[in-house]
Amino acid sequence: MKSAVISIGNEILLGKTVNTNLAFLADGLAALGAPVVYNVVVNDDADDITRALDYCSSRYDIVITTGGLGPTHDDITKATIAKYFGKELVFQPDLWEYVQSLFAKRGVKAPEINRNQALVPQDFSVLENAMGTAPGLYYHHNGLNYFACAGVPIEMRYVFETHITEIIKKQFPKLHSLTQHTIHTFGISESALAERLDTSALPKGVEFAWLPQTGRVDLRLYGMDQEAVYQGAQDIIRQIPGYVWGLDEDTPAKVLGTLLSQRGLSISLAESCTGGLVAKMLSDEPGASDYLLGGVVSYHNDIKSSVLGVSEETLATDGAVSEQTVRQMVLGVKDLMDSDCAISVSGIAGPSGGSAEKPVGTVWFGFAYRDEVWAQKYILTGSRESIRHKAAEVAIITMIKRLISEDR
Amino acid sequence: MKSAVISIGNEILLGKTVNTNLAFLADGLAALGAPVVYNVVVNDDADDITRALDYCSSRYDIVITTGGLGPTHDDITKATIAKYFGKELVFQPDLWEYVQSLFAKRGVKAPEINRNQALVPQDFSVLENAMGTAPGLYYHHNGLNYFACAGVPIEMRYVFETHITEIIKKQFPKLHSLTQHTIHTFGISESALAERLDTSALPKGVEFAWLPQTGRVDLRLYGMDQEAVYQGAQDIIRQIPGYVWGLDEDTPAKVLGTLLSQRGLSISLAESCTGGLVAKMLSDEPGASDYLLGGVVSYHNDIKSSVLGVSEETLATDGAVSEQTVRQMVLGVKDLMDSDCAISVSGIAGPSGGSAEKPVGTVWFGFAYRDEVWAQKYILTGSRESIRHKAAEVAIITMIKRLISEDR
Repeated sequence: MKSAVISIGNEILLGKTVNTNLAFLADGLAALGAPVVYNVVVNDDADDITRALDYCSSRYDIVITTGGLGPTHDDITKATIAKYFGKELVFQPDLWEYVQSLFAKRGVKAPEINRNQALVPQDFSVLENAMGTAPGLYYHHNGLNYFACAGVPIEMRYVFETHITEIIKKQFPKLHSLTQHTIHTFGISESALAERLDTSALPKGVEFAWLPQTGRVDLRLYGMDQEAVYQGAQDIIRQIPGYVWGLDEDTPAKVLGTLLSQRGLSISLAESCTGGLVAKMLSDEPGASDYLLGGVVSYHNDIKSSVLGVSEETLATDGAVSEQTVRQMVLGVKDLMDSDCAISVSGIAGPSGGSAEKPVGTVWFGFAYRDEVWAQKYILTGSRESIRHKAAEVAIITMIKRLISEDR
Repeated sequence: MKSAVISIGNEILLGKTVNTNLAFLADGLAALGAPVVYNVVVNDDADDITRALDYCSSRYDIVITTGGLGPTHDDITKATIAKYFGKELVFQPDLWEYVQSLFAKRGVKAPEINRNQALVPQDFSVLENAMGTAPGLYYHHNGLNYFACAGVPIEMRYVFETHITEIIKKQFPKLHSLTQHTIHTFGISESALAERLDTSALPKGVEFAWLPQTGRVDLRLYGMDQEAVYQGAQDIIRQIPGYVWGLDEDTPAKVLGTLLSQRGLSISLAESCTGGLVAKMLSDEPGASDYLLGGVVSYHNDIKSSVLGVSEETLATDGAVSEQTVRQMVLGVKDLMDSDCAISVSGIAGPSGGSAEKPVGTVWFGFAYRDEVWAQKYILTGSRESIRHKAAEVAIITMIKRLISEDR
């Protein structure tokens, strides 16, 4: 079972949009057992689209196009595929009503140009799109399963997850899906892991891959035999006790959220260089209100003093990026919000602001858990964005490790 | 002058690596005046690579492959292109010396497997790669300019910037580079823009593209004539006064930061449903400390009262997502942090927590600018992530519009 993805859109070939849709679909189709083996990116050009359709539809079982389903004149995918498959475009009044209802919700009349969102090539099925006005389309003919999705990632993802996966499962009930397990580590480098891990004893048919992330390493095991992949993952985890903080879809925020929730603990945050990123990550999780009381972004030193109670003497003597400051910040926010746990972060994210003593990337972290308070310093590398991202993850993963340590 | 990029690598088609190399090359080649009009992604498979080479080399002036030049057994690009162009692979001792010297720097003997890094197809030029062991390759034949680069982004970028751009400029001295302008709009849908905008009067040779973003629309104009593209952009901007908040590389946070900085104004934030995202976006900008004092993430209602001074009666009567609450939040944080401007956000990001009266996506915003205070409600659509993202951008862009309005 082989899939191909045709990505349609000038913006990708102009270099202005990174083709994340391909990564999403490739991941999803591999998981279904219908891996993508070919992807082509073409402009919104009827000849290019037709050539790509022609190439793919004779070679692959599943072909998905993304992009070009919008209402404007440069969106020509629908007309092109209708012509390619020899179908008329038919106006579907219920789709036009749906489009109008979407605009009505926003208190706006649907512009007439959107009428073409209700055109569907004859014999094509409509795949409802709750995230936008352009429905997905499906056409099954001579063993080919052809799908069209909008290019807006949130719409494409919705149509894929809601409809396309179901259709593929129904069309190919015997598909063996690939089993994957991802092991998330922290605090050990890729080469140190490589020296420590023995992957030679992994069960046959289980593949092993290194996936370095920003500031930490993920390990992936995959194969067709579900049980063997699971056993392989357990074997790897046993070899590196203390470095594993999560599995599979886990994110630092999800793992910490689950731990706090299960234990009935609350948390508050005091952030300087991360500027709200730790709070943002924790509140990405639905249900975060169970444990996240809130936080203070004390970007300016005045706020560290006036809101969090960091002493002006500490700021003058030790500086904003110091052990004393993060200790006072974490106690300040824990007290202010009356939480069980608290985290503080203060560092130099760059690109400027570094010194010989405290180079860019120097980040101090403060932690409080019940009556316990401690601080840690890291020197993080990379761009401003990557230093901030790493700092937020270090903050969350360190708290995870503290909470997990009670179970040992 | 047209370019094609052939991306070679299983990891892209497994969905584990996003094809950022394409975006980089597409941007760079467009700037040179040799835009990418075709991209294909294939596995490390000789047949697939050969078919892609065959398709591209007869159609395009410049063809670049990325990936498959490494030393391991799955790297077959070099052998495949040598065969395709009918060339022998020749061992170049100086390249092998260079590879050995790289390993020596790390105190390691170069594994024998790396010897194949010194193999070069006859008549190909070697493009030195200071970032790794796999050199780039160049072959010029019958009007085709073919380049091969390693797939590791830092190596590919080095070879492109150091060698490929120079060769292209030399081969095509009359190349006119593409000029692009992006117009960022807010508060008007793609279809409403389409009805309002007259693009028929754009100067000849100026292309127009719609780039819908999450919750707003970007418009792009591009072409070879710098002055015409600029005039076209000015013409479009004149047609939609009040909807344009930025140009080109502008982001909401960058534009607001520049405005605050220029005017010597400070800002503070009180966030509930966005959970720190507005603060995070503003602090993404280096130099944000010039104007961003800080913020309070008042995720729990207790924090809205205890830290921001929202009255418990308001929370009980009007609820946390209400005009009264965001007005009190914004005044609370402005007072607490003593800022010139302040923004507050409180809404229902979902997926749960909605009601008939206040559905998921209901977001109230409070704004304060000097002595002025106002509030606005939006109903935003999409996932939790996209509602939060849109809410943060609405907050920032609304403040931008208020500050810009003083200039009119």
